[in-house]
Amino acid sequence: MGDPAGVGPEICLRLLANAAMREVCVPIIFGDASIMKRVAAACDLPAPEKIISAAEWQGAWADIDAPVVYDIPTEGMDEVEAGVVSAVTGRAGFVYVEESIRAALAGEIDAVSTAPLNKEALNNAGVPFPGHTEIFAAKTNAERACMMLTSDELTCAFVTVHVGYHEVPGLLNQERILDTIELAAAAMKRLRGRDPKLIACGLNPHAGEGGLFGNREEENIIAPALEVARERGIQIEGPLPPDTCFLPWRREATDCFICMYHDQGHIPLKALAFDKAINVTLGLPIVRTSVDHGTACDIAWQGKANPSSLYEAVGLAAKLAS
Amino acid sequence: MGDPAGVGPEICLRLLANAAMREVCVPIIFGDASIMKRVAAACDLPAPEKIISAAEWQGAWADIDAPVVYDIPTEGMDEVEAGVVSAVTGRAGFVYVEESIRAALAGEIDAVSTAPLNKEALNNAGVPFPGHTEIFAAKTNAERACMMLTSDELTCAFVTVHVGYHEVPGLLNQERILDTIELAAAAMKRLRGRDPKLIACGLNPHAGEGGLFGNREEENIIAPALEVARERGIQIEGPLPPDTCFLPWRREATDCFICMYHDQGHIPLKALAFDKAINVTLGLPIVRTSVDHGTACDIAWQGKANPSSLYEAVGLAAKLAS
Repeated sequence: MGDPAGVGPEICLRLLANAAMREVCVPIIFGDASIMKRVAAACDLPAPEKIISAAEWQGAWADIDAPVVYDIPTEGMDEVEAGVVSAVTGRAGFVYVEESIRAALAGEIDAVSTAPLNKEALNNAGVPFPGHTEIFAAKTNAERACMMLTSDELTCAFVTVHVGYHEVPGLLNQERILDTIELAAAAMKRLRGRDPKLIACGLNPHAGEGGLFGNREEENIIAPALEVARERGIQIEGPLPPDTCFLPWRREATDCFICMYHDQGHIPLKALAFDKAINVTLGLPIVRTSVDHGTACDIAWQGKANPSSLYEAVGLAAKLAS
Repeated sequence: MGDPAGVGPEICLRLLANAAMREVCVPIIFGDASIMKRVAAACDLPAPEKIISAAEWQGAWADIDAPVVYDIPTEGMDEVEAGVVSAVTGRAGFVYVEESIRAALAGEIDAVSTAPLNKEALNNAGVPFPGHTEIFAAKTNAERACMMLTSDELTCAFVTVHVGYHEVPGLLNQERILDTIELAAAAMKRLRGRDPKLIACGLNPHAGEGGLFGNREEENIIAPALEVARERGIQIEGPLPPDTCFLPWRREATDCFICMYHDQGHIPLKALAFDKAINVTLGLPIVRTSVDHGTACDIAWQGKANPSSLYEAVGLAAKLAS
């Protein structure tokens, strides 16, 4: 359900009521039923038809075949107001995620798609993770995990993500690049149903232009990782100049780009598919996808939230889990 | 004319023969007439109608009102072969540029548009500049200069360009950022005929997210430069998260993006306007634009070269010079 004060409850209500989404999965909302009811009233949306408690869930999960809200009450929900995130809402959103991870690891659910949390609210609640991806990696004890963003236009997997610009060169090493390549190749094989074609971006302008720019990260770190990947049967080209990687004809011929840093892939993704990308965490023992937007507190509980990113995320989760 | 062995001579021949281009300027090719004739024969294009020597030029330049080749013979031109760049062709291309800069500084011509040089050939010829931009900055004694790439989709000006990824944070300072902003604002005002709207990108993911990523370059270096720019009457927003800068609605509302590094602007430019961007050097005492492609030696002298980038560059040069 995401942060109760954001657009999460509304887009989850729309998901529950959407006939097309029921074709691909049985949606189960991990969240607070009282909030869902308040938001339904505020937005003039159908209230949840079925609500189940944690106690009821344990005997029932195997037989659930229709949309349901798995009610997870937490302290202070009566005082929550639309758009006002706080330690209380941050804590609540975190608890929903924790419980969904537990259920996924136990095999009670097949995949998790997350609605938006608020980083500041998480921080205020004393949650020691900056965001979803880190929570999932820690709580599932994932040995290697990476972020992938996928859209019809472009798919990118990231060797580094939420770190400062200057930290990137020090974080690049052959193992980390190879992990990202292998995770991306496996995910894209599952999604495409065939061996995917990958491209790895260089780090420097013009991919270093033969050592002219940078510290030969392309020759010394990236290229050797690609060699190992190729020996392991992965089709990957590169390291290519980052700016010509994303030309239209290359995008069409490439299933996934391996990006060295956040903005190398986020810039073209948002420029080309600004609100249609889905965030997938690769390398987890469970399937996890996410919407590509924030809590949008300015339009929370107003009936204005667009659920399409959640639908895309749920559709992809169903595909990855099948 | 660019490097004689590349596609430069062919696109210049096409320019000379193009009626629409004569509407916007009087094209004068600074290059080797013997090469132009050979390429015209090889490509089945019209040979240059009028050729003028350096000696003739001095008495004639003020009265020239039709396309002409300003012949600049250099050593070894008889042996030049299609697609084979060398010290000889690198030296020749450099001499054409030098002479065009001299003529522009003397007011004999109104603007310079450059066809592609080859960096390796320049280097083999002992030319102590990596490319055009640096030649123009040095030969015109420009105190501050920067690269701008412009297209219908997107225009970006660069605080740093051809340096390694790791060097960027150390090169960012308030003066350099302010120079880029002022040069870009002046150029866009000239092009748009009104006060332009600019956006400055941050350096780090999410523009640092309040110090969470990076060394607060946004607060400490970029924001103060923007403050000064605003005090000087420039409309500029930022520093914004680099990935959401280039969303479609922002692109439509923004005349120029101030980019901190090469790929921050080159990635979206090439993804969105892959062969339609024009390179402009800002801050020179003369107007200089350039094609956005290389010597393309694989198709040199074959009649296959697309002159549209040169036409765009010449059209923009004429507009900037008017």
